[in-house]
Amino acid sequence: MNEEHARAAADIAEVEAANTAFYEALERGDLDALTDSWLPGEELTVSCVHPGWPVLTGRRDVLRSYALIMANTDYIQFFLTDVNVTMTGETALVTCTENILSGGPAEDGDALGPLVGRLVVATNVFRHTADGWKLWSHHGSPVLADSDEDDDEDTTP
Amino acid sequence: MNEEHARAAADIAEVEAANTAFYEALERGDLDALTDSWLPGEELTVSCVHPGWPVLTGRRDVLRSYALIMANTDYIQFFLTDVNVTMTGETALVTCTENILSGGPAEDGDALGPLVGRLVVATNVFRHTADGWKLWSHHGSPVLADSDEDDDEDTTP
Repeated sequence: MNEEHARAAADIAEVEAANTAFYEALERGDLDALTDSWLPGEELTVSCVHPGWPVLTGRRDVLRSYALIMANTDYIQFFLTDVNVTMTGETALVTCTENILSGGPAEDGDALGPLVGRLVVATNVFRHTADGWKLWSHHGSPVLADSDEDDDEDTTP
Repeated sequence: MNEEHARAAADIAEVEAANTAFYEALERGDLDALTDSWLPGEELTVSCVHPGWPVLTGRRDVLRSYALIMANTDYIQFFLTDVNVTMTGETALVTCTENILSGGPAEDGDALGPLVGRLVVATNVFRHTADGWKLWSHHGSPVLADSDEDDDEDTTP
Protein backbone atom coordinates (compact mmCIF):
# COMPACT_ATOMS: atom_id res chain seq x y z
CA MET A 1 0.00 0.00 0.00
CA ASN A 2 1.54 3.30 -1.03
CA GLU A 3 1.48 6.42 1.08
CA GLU A 4 -1.53 7.97 -0.66
CA HIS A 5 -3.60 4.85 -0.18
CA ALA A 6 -2.54 4.59 3.45
CA ARG A 7 -3.66 8.18 4.04
CA ALA A 8 -6.99 7.59 2.31
CA ALA A 9 -7.59 4.48 4.44
CA ALA A 10 -6.77 6.46 7.60
CA ASP A 11 -9.15 9.26 6.54
CA ILE A 12 -11.96 6.79 5.92
CA ALA A 13 -11.34 5.16 9.30
CA GLU A 14 -11.59 8.59 10.96
CA VAL A 15 -14.90 9.32 9.24
CA GLU A 16 -16.26 5.91 10.22
CA ALA A 17 -15.24 6.56 13.81
CA ALA A 18 -17.05 9.92 13.80
CA ASN A 19 -20.13 8.23 12.35
CA THR A 20 -20.01 5.53 15.04
CA ALA A 21 -19.51 8.13 17.77
CA PHE A 22 -22.66 9.94 16.60
CA TYR A 23 -24.78 6.80 17.02
CA GLU A 24 -23.12 5.88 20.32
CA ALA A 25 -24.01 9.31 21.70
CA LEU A 26 -27.63 8.60 20.77
CA GLU A 27 -27.48 5.16 22.39
CA ARG A 28 -26.17 6.64 25.64
CA GLY A 29 -28.61 9.54 25.54
CA ASP A 30 -25.56 11.79 25.83
CA LEU A 31 -26.68 15.19 24.53
CA ASP A 32 -23.23 16.74 25.11
CA ALA A 33 -21.50 14.12 22.97
CA LEU A 34 -24.31 14.38 20.42
CA THR A 35 -23.89 18.16 20.30
CA ASP A 36 -20.15 17.66 19.81
CA SER A 37 -20.86 15.44 16.78
CA TRP A 38 -22.36 18.38 14.87
CA LEU A 39 -20.54 21.24 13.12
CA PRO A 40 -20.09 24.12 15.55
CA GLY A 41 -20.75 27.76 14.76
CA GLU A 42 -23.02 29.23 12.15
CA GLU A 43 -20.69 29.35 9.15
CA LEU A 44 -22.32 26.28 7.62
CA THR A 45 -25.99 25.70 8.37
CA VAL A 46 -26.59 22.15 9.56
CA SER A 47 -29.71 20.22 8.63
CA CYS A 48 -31.37 17.08 9.89
CA VAL A 49 -34.25 14.87 8.80
CA HIS A 50 -35.49 12.27 11.27
CA PRO A 51 -37.45 9.37 9.72
CA GLY A 52 -40.85 10.70 8.63
CA TRP A 53 -40.08 14.25 9.77
CA PRO A 54 -39.78 17.46 7.79
CA VAL A 55 -36.36 19.13 7.47
CA LEU A 56 -34.88 20.78 10.56
CA THR A 57 -32.43 23.57 9.78
CA GLY A 58 -29.82 25.15 12.04
CA ARG A 59 -28.13 23.98 15.23
CA ARG A 60 -30.85 25.18 17.58
CA ASP A 61 -33.71 23.23 16.00
CA VAL A 62 -31.57 20.17 15.28
CA LEU A 63 -30.18 19.87 18.80
CA ARG A 64 -33.56 20.57 20.37
CA SER A 65 -35.05 17.70 18.36
CA TYR A 66 -32.47 15.33 19.79
CA ALA A 67 -33.17 16.50 23.32
CA LEU A 68 -36.84 15.74 22.66
CA ILE A 69 -36.09 12.31 21.20
CA MET A 70 -33.78 11.43 24.09
CA ALA A 71 -36.42 12.48 26.63
CA ASN A 72 -38.89 10.08 25.01
CA THR A 73 -36.54 7.14 24.55
CA ASP A 74 -35.57 4.86 27.40
CA TYR A 75 -33.58 2.46 25.29
CA ILE A 76 -32.20 2.65 21.78
CA GLN A 77 -29.55 0.61 20.04
CA PHE A 78 -28.21 0.98 16.51
CA PHE A 79 -26.75 -1.96 14.62
CA LEU A 80 -25.12 -0.32 11.62
CA THR A 81 -24.78 -2.28 8.39
CA ASP A 82 -23.84 -1.41 4.79
CA VAL A 83 -21.65 1.47 5.98
CA ASN A 84 -20.22 3.15 2.90
CA VAL A 85 -17.86 6.16 2.96
CA THR A 86 -16.95 8.36 0.00
CA MET A 87 -14.91 11.47 0.48
CA THR A 88 -13.15 14.28 -1.29
CA GLY A 89 -11.08 16.99 0.34
CA GLU A 90 -12.80 18.14 3.51
CA THR A 91 -16.19 16.56 2.86
CA ALA A 92 -17.22 12.96 3.50
CA LEU A 93 -20.52 11.28 2.71
CA VAL A 94 -21.56 8.21 4.67
CA THR A 95 -24.53 6.00 3.84
CA CYS A 96 -25.57 3.27 6.22
CA THR A 97 -28.47 1.12 7.32
CA GLU A 98 -29.56 1.71 10.91
CA ASN A 99 -31.04 -1.49 12.32
CA ILE A 100 -32.74 0.10 15.33
CA LEU A 101 -34.01 -1.56 18.47
CA SER A 102 -35.76 0.89 20.76
CA GLY A 103 -38.11 1.10 23.69
CA GLY A 104 -40.14 3.88 25.23
CA PRO A 105 -40.59 4.55 28.94
CA ALA A 106 -41.71 1.54 30.95
CA GLU A 107 -45.39 1.38 31.75
CA ASP A 108 -45.03 -0.07 35.24
CA GLY A 109 -42.28 -1.01 37.65
CA ASP A 110 -38.69 -1.02 36.52
CA ALA A 111 -39.18 -3.09 33.36
CA LEU A 112 -38.45 -1.61 29.97
CA GLY A 113 -41.33 -0.57 27.71
CA PRO A 114 -42.04 -2.75 24.67
CA LEU A 115 -39.08 -3.02 22.30
CA VAL A 116 -39.61 -2.13 18.66
CA GLY A 117 -37.31 -2.97 15.74
CA ARG A 118 -37.08 -0.57 12.80
CA LEU A 119 -35.13 -0.33 9.58
CA VAL A 120 -33.86 3.13 8.66
CA VAL A 121 -31.37 4.23 6.01
CA ALA A 122 -29.23 7.31 6.54
CA THR A 123 -27.11 9.69 4.52
CA ASN A 124 -24.67 11.53 6.78
CA VAL A 125 -22.49 14.35 5.47
CA PHE A 126 -19.38 15.25 7.47
CA ARG A 127 -16.96 18.17 7.23
CA HIS A 128 -13.40 18.05 8.46
CA THR A 129 -12.52 20.59 11.15
CA ALA A 130 -9.55 21.19 13.43
CA ASP A 131 -11.50 19.16 15.99
CA GLY A 132 -12.15 16.22 13.66
CA TRP A 133 -15.06 15.25 11.42
CA LYS A 134 -18.38 16.90 12.27
CA LEU A 135 -21.90 16.36 10.94
CA TRP A 136 -23.16 18.88 8.40
CA SER A 137 -26.29 16.92 7.55
CA HIS A 138 -28.12 13.80 8.70
CA HIS A 139 -31.04 12.40 6.73
CA GLY A 140 -32.70 9.23 7.99
CA SER A 141 -35.72 7.60 6.39
CA PRO A 142 -37.80 4.50 6.99
CA VAL A 143 -37.36 1.57 4.62
CA LEU A 144 -40.94 0.82 3.62
CA ALA A 145 -40.37 -1.83 0.96
CA ASP A 146 -37.71 -4.31 0.03
CA SER A 147 -35.75 -3.74 -3.10
CA ASP A 148 -34.71 -6.77 -5.13
CA GLU A 149 -32.16 -4.66 -7.02
CA ASP A 150 -29.33 -6.88 -5.91
CA ASP A 151 -31.11 -10.16 -6.43
CA ASP A 152 -31.87 -9.73 -10.09
CA GLU A 153 -28.50 -8.42 -11.19
CA ASP A 154 -27.38 -11.74 -12.61
CA THR A 155 -30.60 -12.39 -14.46
CA THR A 156 -31.22 -8.96 -15.96
CA PRO A 157 -30.47 -9.05 -19.69
CA MET B 1 -23.11 44.23 -2.02
CA ASN B 2 -19.36 43.65 -2.12
CA GLU B 3 -17.61 41.36 -4.58
CA GLU B 4 -17.42 38.38 -2.23
CA HIS B 5 -21.13 38.55 -1.48
CA ALA B 6 -21.92 38.90 -5.17
CA ARG B 7 -19.90 35.78 -5.95
CA ALA B 8 -21.56 33.82 -3.15
CA ALA B 9 -25.00 34.85 -4.42
CA ALA B 10 -24.04 33.77 -7.96
CA ASP B 11 -22.76 30.40 -6.66
CA ILE B 12 -25.99 29.79 -4.76
CA ALA B 13 -28.04 30.69 -7.84
CA GLU B 14 -26.02 28.16 -9.88
CA VAL B 15 -26.63 25.43 -7.31
CA GLU B 16 -30.35 26.24 -7.22
CA ALA B 17 -30.46 26.04 -11.02
CA ALA B 18 -28.77 22.62 -10.96
CA ASN B 19 -31.27 21.48 -8.34
CA THR B 20 -34.19 22.73 -10.43
CA ALA B 21 -32.78 21.09 -13.59
CA PHE B 22 -32.66 17.74 -11.77
CA TYR B 23 -36.38 17.91 -10.94
CA GLU B 24 -37.29 19.20 -14.40
CA ALA B 25 -35.52 16.21 -15.98
CA LEU B 26 -37.70 13.96 -13.81
CA GLU B 27 -40.84 15.87 -14.81
CA ARG B 28 -40.04 15.47 -18.51
CA GLY B 29 -39.03 11.82 -18.09
CA ASP B 30 -35.75 12.83 -19.73
CA LEU B 31 -33.26 10.12 -18.72
CA ASP B 32 -30.39 11.80 -20.63
CA ALA B 33 -30.83 15.08 -18.77
CA LEU B 34 -31.30 13.15 -15.53
CA THR B 35 -28.07 11.24 -16.16
CA ASP B 36 -26.34 14.54 -16.84
CA SER B 37 -27.45 15.83 -13.42
CA TRP B 38 -25.32 13.21 -11.65
CA LEU B 39 -21.55 13.20 -11.08
CA PRO B 40 -19.84 11.43 -13.97
CA GLY B 41 -17.10 8.85 -13.61
CA GLU B 42 -16.31 6.62 -10.70
CA GLU B 43 -14.02 8.90 -8.68
CA LEU B 44 -16.78 9.70 -6.22
CA THR B 45 -19.42 7.04 -5.62
CA VAL B 46 -22.91 8.51 -5.95
CA SER B 47 -25.77 7.37 -3.75
CA CYS B 48 -29.52 7.75 -3.87
CA VAL B 49 -32.42 7.02 -1.55
CA HIS B 50 -35.93 7.19 -3.02
CA PRO B 51 -38.73 7.64 -0.46
CA GLY B 52 -39.15 4.37 1.43
CA TRP B 53 -36.33 2.65 -0.48
CA PRO B 54 -33.00 1.28 0.75
CA VAL B 55 -29.78 3.02 -0.34
CA LEU B 56 -28.70 2.68 -3.96
CA THR B 57 -24.96 3.05 -4.49
CA GLY B 58 -23.07 3.77 -7.71
CA ARG B 59 -24.13 5.26 -11.04
CA ARG B 60 -25.40 2.01 -12.54
CA ASP B 61 -27.92 1.20 -9.82
CA VAL B 62 -28.95 4.84 -9.34
CA LEU B 63 -29.60 5.53 -13.02
CA ARG B 64 -31.34 2.21 -13.49
CA SER B 65 -33.74 3.08 -10.67
CA TYR B 66 -34.69 6.31 -12.44
CA ALA B 67 -35.29 4.46 -15.71
CA LEU B 68 -37.62 2.15 -13.77
CA ILE B 69 -39.42 5.05 -12.08
CA MET B 70 -39.84 6.91 -15.38
CA ALA B 71 -41.24 3.78 -17.05
CA ASN B 72 -43.90 3.55 -14.36
CA THR B 73 -44.81 7.24 -14.19
CA ASP B 74 -47.01 8.89 -16.78
CA TYR B 75 -47.14 12.24 -15.07
CA ILE B 76 -45.12 13.79 -12.29
CA GLN B 77 -44.73 17.37 -11.17
CA PHE B 78 -42.58 18.79 -8.39
CA PHE B 79 -43.49 22.01 -6.61
CA LEU B 80 -40.37 22.81 -4.62
CA THR B 81 -40.68 24.79 -1.41
CA ASP B 82 -38.35 25.59 1.50
CA VAL B 83 -35.31 25.39 -0.79
CA ASN B 84 -32.23 26.00 1.33
CA VAL B 85 -28.65 26.04 0.02
CA THR B 86 -25.48 25.93 2.11
CA MET B 87 -22.11 25.58 0.49
CA THR B 88 -18.40 25.55 1.11
CA GLY B 89 -15.73 25.28 -1.53
CA GLU B 90 -16.76 22.73 -4.12
CA THR B 91 -19.58 21.13 -2.15
CA ALA B 92 -23.15 22.36 -1.81
CA LEU B 93 -25.96 20.93 0.27
CA VAL B 94 -29.56 21.62 -0.70
CA THR B 95 -32.59 20.76 1.38
CA CYS B 96 -36.06 21.18 -0.04
CA THR B 97 -39.64 20.02 0.23
CA GLU B 98 -40.91 18.22 -2.86
CA ASN B 99 -44.66 18.76 -3.16
CA ILE B 100 -45.29 15.98 -5.66
CA LEU B 101 -48.30 15.47 -7.91
CA SER B 102 -48.05 12.24 -9.89
CA GLY B 103 -50.11 9.80 -11.90
CA GLY B 104 -49.50 6.29 -13.14
CA PRO B 105 -50.47 4.90 -16.54
CA ALA B 106 -54.09 5.53 -17.53
CA GLU B 107 -56.46 2.66 -17.05
CA ASP B 108 -58.50 3.23 -20.21
CA GLY B 109 -58.53 5.54 -23.20
CA ASP B 110 -56.23 8.53 -23.31
CA ALA B 111 -57.08 9.90 -19.87
CA LEU B 112 -54.44 10.15 -17.16
CA GLY B 113 -54.45 7.66 -14.30
CA PRO B 114 -55.54 8.90 -10.88
CA LEU B 115 -53.38 11.76 -9.58
CA VAL B 116 -51.78 11.41 -6.17
CA GLY B 117 -50.26 14.16 -4.05
CA ARG B 118 -47.31 13.40 -1.80
CA LEU B 119 -45.04 15.31 0.52
CA VAL B 120 -41.36 14.39 0.39
CA VAL B 121 -38.32 16.11 1.87
CA ALA B 122 -34.94 15.85 0.18
CA THR B 123 -31.29 16.41 0.98
CA ASN B 124 -29.30 16.85 -2.23
CA VAL B 125 -25.49 17.08 -2.17
CA PHE B 126 -23.79 18.64 -5.19
CA ARG B 127 -20.14 18.83 -6.24
CA HIS B 128 -18.74 21.49 -8.51
CA THR B 129 -17.17 20.20 -11.74
CA ALA B 130 -15.86 21.80 -14.93
CA ASP B 131 -19.33 21.06 -16.35
CA GLY B 132 -21.22 22.69 -13.48
CA TRP B 133 -22.79 21.37 -10.29
CA LYS B 134 -23.52 17.63 -10.27
CA LEU B 135 -25.39 15.42 -7.80
CA TRP B 136 -23.26 13.35 -5.44
CA SER B 137 -26.19 12.22 -3.30
CA HIS B 138 -29.97 12.46 -3.28
CA HIS B 139 -31.97 11.34 -0.25
CA GLY B 140 -35.75 11.72 -0.37
CA SER B 141 -38.11 10.63 2.37
CA PRO B 142 -41.83 10.76 3.01
CA VAL B 143 -43.12 13.25 5.55
CA LEU B 144 -45.30 11.10 7.79
CA ALA B 145 -46.19 13.57 10.51
CA ASP B 146 -46.43 17.30 10.94
CA SER B 147 -43.93 19.02 13.13
CA ASP B 148 -45.14 21.90 15.26
CA GLU B 149 -41.55 22.98 15.94
CA ASP B 150 -42.15 26.39 14.44
CA ASP B 151 -45.50 27.01 16.06
CA ASP B 152 -44.39 26.76 19.65
CA GLU B 153 -41.24 28.84 19.41
CA ASP B 154 -42.78 31.90 20.95
CA THR B 155 -44.32 30.05 23.86
CA THR B 156 -41.45 27.75 24.78
CA PRO B 157 -39.79 28.99 27.96
